[in-house]
Amino acid sequence: MVADIPTPSLPIPAGDSGLFTDLYELTMGQSYFAEGMLEREAAFSLFMRGYPPHRGYMVAAGIDDALDCLAALSFDADSINYLRSTGIFTPDFLDYLSAFRFAGSVRAVPEGALFFADEPIMEITGSIIETQLAETIVINQVQYQSLLATKSARCVQAAGGRAIADFASRRTHGSEAGLRMARASYIAGFAATSNVLAARRYGIPPAGTMAHSYITGFASEADAFRAYARMFPQRSIFLLDTYDTLAAAHTAADVAREMESDSARLTAVRLDSGDLDALSRQVREVLDDAGLDYVRILVSGGLDEYEIERLVTNGAPVDMFGVGTRVGVSGDAPWCDMVYKMVRYDGQPVMKLSDGKQSLPGAKQVFRQHDPSGIMSGDVIALANETDGKGQPLLADAMRNGARTATREPVDAARQRAAAGLSALGPDYRRLRQPTEYPVTLSPGLTQLTEQVRHRISSAHQA
Amino acid sequence: MVADIPTPSLPIPAGDSGLFTDLYELTMGQSYFAEGMLEREAAFSLFMRGYPPHRGYMVAAGIDDALDCLAALSFDADSINYLRSTGIFTPDFLDYLSAFRFAGSVRAVPEGALFFADEPIMEITGSIIETQLAETIVINQVQYQSLLATKSARCVQAAGGRAIADFASRRTHGSEAGLRMARASYIAGFAATSNVLAARRYGIPPAGTMAHSYITGFASEADAFRAYARMFPQRSIFLLDTYDTLAAAHTAADVAREMESDSARLTAVRLDSGDLDALSRQVREVLDDAGLDYVRILVSGGLDEYEIERLVTNGAPVDMFGVGTRVGVSGDAPWCDMVYKMVRYDGQPVMKLSDGKQSLPGAKQVFRQHDPSGIMSGDVIALANETDGKGQPLLADAMRNGARTATREPVDAARQRAAAGLSALGPDYRRLRQPTEYPVTLSPGLTQLTEQVRHRISSAHQA
Repeated sequence: MVADIPTPSLPIPAGDSGLFTDLYELTMGQSYFAEGMLEREAAFSLFMRGYPPHRGYMVAAGIDDALDCLAALSFDADSINYLRSTGIFTPDFLDYLSAFRFAGSVRAVPEGALFFADEPIMEITGSIIETQLAETIVINQVQYQSLLATKSARCVQAAGGRAIADFASRRTHGSEAGLRMARASYIAGFAATSNVLAARRYGIPPAGTMAHSYITGFASEADAFRAYARMFPQRSIFLLDTYDTLAAAHTAADVAREMESDSARLTAVRLDSGDLDALSRQVREVLDDAGLDYVRILVSGGLDEYEIERLVTNGAPVDMFGVGTRVGVSGDAPWCDMVYKMVRYDGQPVMKLSDGKQSLPGAKQVFRQHDPSGIMSGDVIALANETDGKGQPLLADAMRNGARTATREPVDAARQRAAAGLSALGPDYRRLRQPTEYPVTLSPGLTQLTEQVRHRISSAHQA
Repeated sequence: MVADIPTPSLPIPAGDSGLFTDLYELTMGQSYFAEGMLEREAAFSLFMRGYPPHRGYMVAAGIDDALDCLAALSFDADSINYLRSTGIFTPDFLDYLSAFRFAGSVRAVPEGALFFADEPIMEITGSIIETQLAETIVINQVQYQSLLATKSARCVQAAGGRAIADFASRRTHGSEAGLRMARASYIAGFAATSNVLAARRYGIPPAGTMAHSYITGFASEADAFRAYARMFPQRSIFLLDTYDTLAAAHTAADVAREMESDSARLTAVRLDSGDLDALSRQVREVLDDAGLDYVRILVSGGLDEYEIERLVTNGAPVDMFGVGTRVGVSGDAPWCDMVYKMVRYDGQPVMKLSDGKQSLPGAKQVFRQHDPSGIMSGDVIALANETDGKGQPLLADAMRNGARTATREPVDAARQRAAAGLSALGPDYRRLRQPTEYPVTLSPGLTQLTEQVRHRISSAHQA
């Protein structure tokens, strides 16, 4: 197993990183600067409002990238020159930005942790400008990676122990998303990825089969199978659906028997179209009749957790799944309502009151409680300084004064955390459709503070 | 207007680019190498099978990035070392890869062109290894960028001339997708982006308003508005829904009147939650009653083409839209069935026959036909060498022997092309729901070749 790379590969070049932000973060910053408010301390929480359809839990991913982006946050000379060219910014604010580095502090849940609606998963504290400039990239990185990890975890559950490989790179929203999909799905429990760069960067086993074009490049399907087996006698997976799947199964069986006489073993066959349930049974029979019970069946083509569940529940003799498109874009839930809201400002807890968009005030901690058998029984969102919180605290120091506080974890640590979390989550909360809502409550201290702040804001506003 | 940057910003580091591929492209390559087939010429077509829901046309985007990735395709020493460490590859094939450069040729439709199902939008010709190694990154780049450009074009249509700004960066699938969303939506006709880095890279006007946290950072909403207006007297957009939208509208009107006495003018107000139709009418009345008919109304919050159409059709007094999440992930269609299929191999036209996954053989051209008034009347997919094709050919040389044949276009050229295409497309094909299918037919030459190849493959396979 290759360890996670020690140097981060930033999604954006470090010098450009300050500009990967929404314009208003900079214009508001300039106003704070002019008003003498820029150095006031603020705290923001990253959390998800409500659940995407059919989700009862989320798997955290992308936090590591978000921290790397914060550590790199700066404006190089080209960036400053561009900002000057817009005519929007004052020379003194541009001078300020040219020396800007993120020196805030971050508490975060670790990668692979389960989280639930309304729970803070990152809390960022610093000057108002630091915390604002963090917003765009932090949501950008954590939202989609958590969606992909969650979608993948649902596939792992549905597969009931059968291996799943990530084949999504061609359909993710860009190459960055392709790499992060490989990582997120591995954290969620996938066995391998077809993306070779992701395999290298994150130490994930690479996996692959063959393409239809390979088959058509030879005079016959048998010739194609034989050529591949000659090169990869111990790791061949034959693709069966280029012309006629059942005919190809017989051809594959013939070639597999030939391979045996060379002490080679066909690893698997792959079905990539048609009625995968019926075909897998027919192909299994062809293989078994030829004494090839060790040859496994991999299926692919439009799979997601729902289709995997259907095949597994029906007892289709499938050993491995290759998933792509629908999982790599979290097809039924390509976004969630992950937001980044101010919770403390200039020493005062604050909250948002807009219809349907309320937030919880103050810096917080989440305590996870388990029953005696180790099953998760509920989370409590509490104030960060509430010392009587029972359970396991989820948020831990991740950056202090702009520097990461811990060494980078290997991806396997996040993978083990996700597996442990999922095995501790009751089945009702893990259901693929209409899961029971996991109990998340507010601590007495947070409940009291929320009422106080609501009252203070309402009074001030009605005055 | 800033011209498009002359040096490409690759989605992945050049030295890593060879590894951003599915493992099977490399294992098949090694088999071709061993079989002495590696230098055989092949041609592949990139096209979309069928339409995503409710799409009647697509806007091409991402081709420029795909070409940049092909031009950079290589394996640096770290990449070769990684491949060696997997134990899958032979020393002689690794030597071959370490010297590999993409030297193939590409014909492509230009960015911003409209395209339809089954039409080739890129055709890549080269050795079998060159054309295979291109697959993953080409689909990866063109599929999602075209989806985002198409989703954005639908918003532009629905907005009926009102300006739209891209606010999607925080919800796209990564920072690369955020930048490309800004670009794709600008090609589709958006007026601006909130992403400052995208604005710089692509020469798009940057746009922004203010956040709820800005409002809550001041003692009162009026103080926040005043502070912002002091800094940006000619480009302030006040956010109204932090506490109570109508009360805030009155406050905004008061501050706007104060601004007038300093020769400043409030640009707009922004509504970001609640019933946008009803609120926009009430806020318009407040502004008009205060003599502020020049202050525009921007709405945002969960918008997509369907909601924009509803607001516009109902006559809501909205002047500008800010769109994010649902558009930035192409929420109702986050993927399409864009595929890359072999069409010629070793001098012979080839095609795929799998159920529901058939392809058309041979290198091709698409001819677009217009009626005398300039309205598009239908496309014909023809063989590339069919000289009697009538209409405007869509595919043009983009790379020859690994080098780009044309200078990089500014993004505005693609934007103008998309606008011209959309205005030449009849309204039935542009409908947001259940559009009429645009007529795409096969030329006599392609029809004949398809039958011949189908017959040849079927005969060979039954033999």
